[in-house]
Amino acid sequence: MRDFDEQTITDAVHQSFAGTPDARLAQIMSRLVAHMHEFIRDVAPSFEEFQAAVGFLTATGQISDQRRQEFILLADVLGVSMLIDAINHRMPEGATETTVLGPFHVADAPLCANGADISAGVAGELLFVDGCVLDPQGTPLAGAQIDVWQSDAEGFYDLQRPEQGGSALRARLRSDSAGRFWFRSIVPAAYPIPDDGPVGALLHATKRHPWRPAHVHFMIAAPDFETLITHVFVAGDQYLDSDAVFGVKTSLIADFVKMPPGALPDGSVTAQPWRHLSYQFGLKPVAV
Amino acid sequence: MRDFDEQTITDAVHQSFAGTPDARLAQIMSRLVAHMHEFIRDVAPSFEEFQAAVGFLTATGQISDQRRQEFILLADVLGVSMLIDAINHRMPEGATETTVLGPFHVADAPLCANGADISAGVAGELLFVDGCVLDPQGTPLAGAQIDVWQSDAEGFYDLQRPEQGGSALRARLRSDSAGRFWFRSIVPAAYPIPDDGPVGALLHATKRHPWRPAHVHFMIAAPDFETLITHVFVAGDQYLDSDAVFGVKTSLIADFVKMPPGALPDGSVTAQPWRHLSYQFGLKPVAV
Repeated sequence: MRDFDEQTITDAVHQSFAGTPDARLAQIMSRLVAHMHEFIRDVAPSFEEFQAAVGFLTATGQISDQRRQEFILLADVLGVSMLIDAINHRMPEGATETTVLGPFHVADAPLCANGADISAGVAGELLFVDGCVLDPQGTPLAGAQIDVWQSDAEGFYDLQRPEQGGSALRARLRSDSAGRFWFRSIVPAAYPIPDDGPVGALLHATKRHPWRPAHVHFMIAAPDFETLITHVFVAGDQYLDSDAVFGVKTSLIADFVKMPPGALPDGSVTAQPWRHLSYQFGLKPVAV
Repeated sequence: MRDFDEQTITDAVHQSFAGTPDARLAQIMSRLVAHMHEFIRDVAPSFEEFQAAVGFLTATGQISDQRRQEFILLADVLGVSMLIDAINHRMPEGATETTVLGPFHVADAPLCANGADISAGVAGELLFVDGCVLDPQGTPLAGAQIDVWQSDAEGFYDLQRPEQGGSALRARLRSDSAGRFWFRSIVPAAYPIPDDGPVGALLHATKRHPWRPAHVHFMIAAPDFETLITHVFVAGDQYLDSDAVFGVKTSLIADFVKMPPGALPDGSVTAQPWRHLSYQFGLKPVAV
């Protein structure tokens, strides 16, 4: 193997991976090499462009940490996350559509009882959420774990406000015997994805805006069902048609209904106007 | 833009980049999105595989620093570096072929006079190198800057031996009025590319060895000529046909001739056997 030209180098690299024991890894490397070499022959990068790409990828890795995953953000803005989502979630009738996880989920949000206020005192317009978890036939699923997380009224997650000193606007709840769950929160806001890193530089250079329409994240798990990862978007948001991460599906847009002061669905009373989100989630059974 | 499926997401991402002001960046992003989405549809990664890829890329960025560039190493083992080299260096007759820069070059190697011993006392078999720098017609180029760097007799670069405490086996020289340069060193050894990081893990998982055949790196610069980046490989090395980074070209393999004790080409005398490398470098004129 020597003296490769622009075409024979690809065969040589394929040959080098020929001894890969794991069939799936062999397939992935083979397709990766084929597509990557085709891309490079297609754009014929200069040495300086190659160096710039290496610098971009290195910076993307180096800005990532426990609170920030810039490669996921990159996959998001390139539509890669939603493409992988589409490939992996062909949904049956009655199952809620899925969307990106996003970079702001944390594994161990506070465990809360139904009815809890998950705002941790962060200011905003009162939101009352009630949901229910069903199978595709509409049978309620009791004891499902609901993981919820969202931005504050200015579009920031608690992870982006370390000075706030703790978890806010995220919780884990359980559905009751009728598959229902409910909590108090505040209305989320549209927000820009973090755009002070390499991905932000890419968006700026290509005149793309970094905004996502306002939404609440849900991850819902129950035994014998696929874990659902989705958002519910606020109807009327100006970014529904230009989400920076391509995450909007019509079925996931819901009215956050404006309500006058008075009784909330759980019987408590508020002296302020509030908004009401009511949404049914359908889980997809695990293929047997 | 919403409700994308596995096909329409690609159009949506293309559309999002439609306002890119720089034509070259627009072209690169368009081709990147096309090839990347095609790759993903082709292999249909699971969510877990996507997470593994994100973890791999993040680790590749995070292990990189001033002394180590793991993304260049990744490009090397995937044949990407040599493909870009082939695209950018279509060489005229009389010009030396090019190969990868590799991760061990540093910008400010010690300036040395011809005849210097660049080994900095590192043990090994004495090597005497004499070269000359020519244009494609064979006219000597005086005053060219020759940057040279190489491994020690155990296959390590000075950067990999911080305990050695300084620069060794690297230098910058100038060609004399006849285009000649010469120095003393030691014979380099074959060595594995750094395989304790993500790229090493990839090689291990695919049963590829990390070895490169023994070589001396040269970067040669002269006004009005393209800077030449190349290696000269030691003839007979066992890895010439399986270089982990696909960098070998037949024209770059040279005899490191075994010589008996006695006079060196510069008139000095050695009591030990030594080896002699003599190589002519041809530079390519900058296109006018």
